[in-house]
Amino acid sequence: MILCDIGNSALHFYDGKRVWHRTPDTLEPFTEPLHYISVNPTFEHALLDICPHAHNLEPQIKLESSYKGLGVDRKAACLGLGDDGVVVDAGSAITIDVMEKGMHLGGVILPGFKAYHQAYQSISEVLDHPINVRIDLESLPQSTAQALSYGALKSILLVLEGIIGKRRVVFTGGDGEFLSAFFTRGVYHKWLVFEGMRRALA
Amino acid sequence: MILCDIGNSALHFYDGKRVWHRTPDTLEPFTEPLHYISVNPTFEHALLDICPHAHNLEPQIKLESSYKGLGVDRKAACLGLGDDGVVVDAGSAITIDVMEKGMHLGGVILPGFKAYHQAYQSISEVLDHPINVRIDLESLPQSTAQALSYGALKSILLVLEGIIGKRRVVFTGGDGEFLSAFFTRGVYHKWLVFEGMRRALA
Repeated sequence: MILCDIGNSALHFYDGKRVWHRTPDTLEPFTEPLHYISVNPTFEHALLDICPHAHNLEPQIKLESSYKGLGVDRKAACLGLGDDGVVVDAGSAITIDVMEKGMHLGGVILPGFKAYHQAYQSISEVLDHPINVRIDLESLPQSTAQALSYGALKSILLVLEGIIGKRRVVFTGGDGEFLSAFFTRGVYHKWLVFEGMRRALA
Repeated sequence: MILCDIGNSALHFYDGKRVWHRTPDTLEPFTEPLHYISVNPTFEHALLDICPHAHNLEPQIKLESSYKGLGVDRKAACLGLGDDGVVVDAGSAITIDVMEKGMHLGGVILPGFKAYHQAYQSISEVLDHPINVRIDLESLPQSTAQALSYGALKSILLVLEGIIGKRRVVFTGGDGEFLSAFFTRGVYHKWLVFEGMRRALA
């Protein structure tokens, strides 16, 4: 059995052992049963062209929530987390979702680090510096480049601290491992979405 | 005497009583002495074409600081603040500068509200919602639009709280009045930059 998480920039596959990534150009057919979730209709069509029997798992990704517009990948990550705690998925956007007693209580969205760079860049070319996530947060910035990186990293960490509080927290996504290091109880689970899909199938 | 603050999007004028704004297209000549500061060479040239005797006040805007690349408008706002406290200039970017005993200790830059919108938009069209600054911060967001506005406003306020602490704070810029309302000791001074220019001339 193969699981597939179709995201904005790639199709992510998991066979229970390893994970690999494809774009529509590099997709290959599968003989095994394949279950997928998708937030990207174009890539989903590409998968179905090559694997017409691929099964959309979305109807089985059931999460109690009053949040309107919760993406199926966020739902799956919450299922992967379990009944209580916070999921932080740090990618192009940073989504923060709170679970309590098996119910999704709500969520917050922050720009990811690249999107902070985009935001600064959109204001003035003077502010066009890549974000340095290793910036020292103990002392006040002494240059424009430092001031931008400090602003981005500090705002992300403060919002996370406020929401996480004393809750359990699991980080996932490309910048999840890095961010998890700032939280003593922070756990990094690279494939939390697949864990949720696996639980939905169980 | 007329003071002029040449910014990224307009030339701002002040005659001691009222403030008015021009772009290079709508500039008119002046007979009175005119002192200016500028962060926009193109607009500065337009002013000098029409008012060749306009005086660049920048060499007189003296601020003790080890910050590299501090804009002359930020320096002037710090002079306008005085010896101790925090200046928050909330416009297309939100700049936060800390003064202590007449010395500039450093600064932080955050995206302004429009730039947060740009950042979200750059990630996905699903995240293309204007920021609602009236978002309720007491409860967890229950929709994508709420989650984005909460993320932007909350991160700005938390970074401000952290830097301001128990210091005196003066807000300026287009969103300064709105943000000042979140801080019990927050003062809004619409023309803090002109106040700094006035002090530099005194």
